[in-house]
Amino acid sequence: MDRIRVMDVRSLRDARRFAADKMAKVGLYATERLWCDLYCLEPGQAQEVHSHAGSDKVYVVVGGRALMTVGGEERELLEGEAALAPAGQPHGVRNGSEERLTVLVVTAPPFTS
Amino acid sequence: MDRIRVMDVRSLRDARRFAADKMAKVGLYATERLWCDLYCLEPGQAQEVHSHAGSDKVYVVVGGRALMTVGGEERELLEGEAALAPAGQPHGVRNGSEERLTVLVVTAPPFTS
Repeated sequence: MDRIRVMDVRSLRDARRFAADKMAKVGLYATERLWCDLYCLEPGQAQEVHSHAGSDKVYVVVGGRALMTVGGEERELLEGEAALAPAGQPHGVRNGSEERLTVLVVTAPPFTS
Repeated sequence: MDRIRVMDVRSLRDARRFAADKMAKVGLYATERLWCDLYCLEPGQAQEVHSHAGSDKVYVVVGGRALMTVGGEERELLEGEAALAPAGQPHGVRNGSEERLTVLVVTAPPFTS
């Protein structure tokens, strides 16, 4: 592979996009091996609990407070806290606060369904 | 897979560990599909430029300022900025500042060499 000449630098703050009707998912990087996204949630918005059989996901709260579900448990995550959603585990995140919530999510490998 | 009952929440701040002799790598999550680590660099410390044929890596600066190399380029990344090191591209990070540097790094898939 040729050496790349322009580094793909993304600012998490500048990349944020919020939508009035539902959680906005902003793609930062998408490769054959991983996805890196920002989930941007207005107060009251949620990513519904779901699961992927063959992909692990790391969630990192980069702004605000999250109500994170993994498996049978829901916990509040503060800014700078991370959680792992292992393959096959039901998981989701919601914004139960009065402030905007931004979560960095890395999924590996990408999935098609 | 059984539903997990204890969510593995990690605080990026609490997980930091610095070492006087070299960059400290703190493992947050290690699965079959990804590694999620914190790289903790005192001023002057570096992860030497290297590459992996089959793994992509996302770097996110969570504290301090990084001098990030990907391919033939070095750029300064500030807190809240991210870069992608695609498989096969030489990459590394160093702390050219006077403050401690902490970088979240997700590698997918894990590699053995």
